Amino acid sequence: MKIITSNPGKFNEYYAFFKEIGLEAEWIRMKYPEIQADTTEEVVIESMNFLTSKGYKDFIVDDSGIFIDALNGFPGVYSSYVYKTIGLSGILKLLNDYENRGAKFVTVIGLELGGNTHLFKGEVRGTISFEPQGTGGFGYDPIFIPEGMNKTFAEMSIEEKNSISHRGRAMNSLKEFLIKKVI
Amino acid sequence: MKIITSNPGKFNEYYAFFKEIGLEAEWIRMKYPEIQADTTEEVVIESMNFLTSKGYKDFIVDDSGIFIDALNGFPGVYSSYVYKTIGLSGILKLLNDYENRGAKFVTVIGLELGGNTHLFKGEVRGTISFEPQGTGGFGYDPIFIPEGMNKTFAEMSIEEKNSISHRGRAMNSLKEFLIKKVI
Repeated sequence: MKIITSNPGKFNEYYAFFKEIGLEAEWIRMKYPEIQADTTEEVVIESMNFLTSKGYKDFIVDDSGIFIDALNGFPGVYSSYVYKTIGLSGILKLLNDYENRGAKFVTVIGLELGGNTHLFKGEVRGTISFEPQGTGGFGYDPIFIPEGMNKTFAEMSIEEKNSISHRGRAMNSLKEFLIKKVI
Repeated sequence: MKIITSNPGKFNEYYAFFKEIGLEAEWIRMKYPEIQADTTEEVVIESMNFLTSKGYKDFIVDDSGIFIDALNGFPGVYSSYVYKTIGLSGILKLLNDYENRGAKFVTVIGLELGGNTHLFKGEVRGTISFEPQGTGGFGYDPIFIPEGMNKTFAEMSIEEKNSISHRGRAMNSLKEFLIKKVI
């Protein structure tokens, strides 16, 4: 299976994941165009269309985002751009006057296998904290408290985070699918 | 010349523009994919690549954005998404603590003509007002005061705005080019 990403951290996660289920992972290190869209699914599907049109087969891509209720879903599919520009402090400032601090984290994995396209979505609801807490994880992890917990993703071990996270859940669906179809 | 846009207001502006220089404008009403990128030029170039790959010829597309200095260029190429989600009030909130309220408005027009690609960029610097002012224009116009003026774009007539605006400037470059090459 080819993992197409420019992010070494992401490849490492997939490498470990595939090893666990007895499959090999090959890293195609490249950036591919991502479109402007409202949903993570649209972004992933269009990236897959681009990659298959370039002749790529049997590959995985993924995309994630955080969608904040009071901000009409902002920053959504633009989460990484917003993180780089206004940052966590910008997000906390925007939420200043809101009582509703609900949000969801979404990952969509796109799998191209034998000419077919499959999507696996993982979602976790939670709330945005008032201050960044913790030093683990990356991106919005220090301000996201998953439902039913009293700490942020950045205050958890990788294993604890993956057991409930959006990407963890998407990977579990992918795993079930691959075990049925391939192994 | 084909004007490819889903926005009737944009087509009307180009229709008037082409009429003035004695050329016909045909409206191709469609949405085309726009990529996630750092600059307006990249977005326009990739949209043009997509459209030419679909067989379109002799057409115009354009894209605009507002880049705010203190926010590291945010909202930039995502201006229309940010307008729809956090809105002008979100932008004003993010700028609360900043003394530097500098910003620039950018339009890039992409022209495909006889198999060649041309870009025309218009830019106007200015500052972000403390409150929305005026009812004209659209988008960020009520909070953008162009350099050397003491009112926002939304407080100007269309003619006054176009004489100094980013899109007005990009259209002027396009006009000079077309007059030399075509007419």
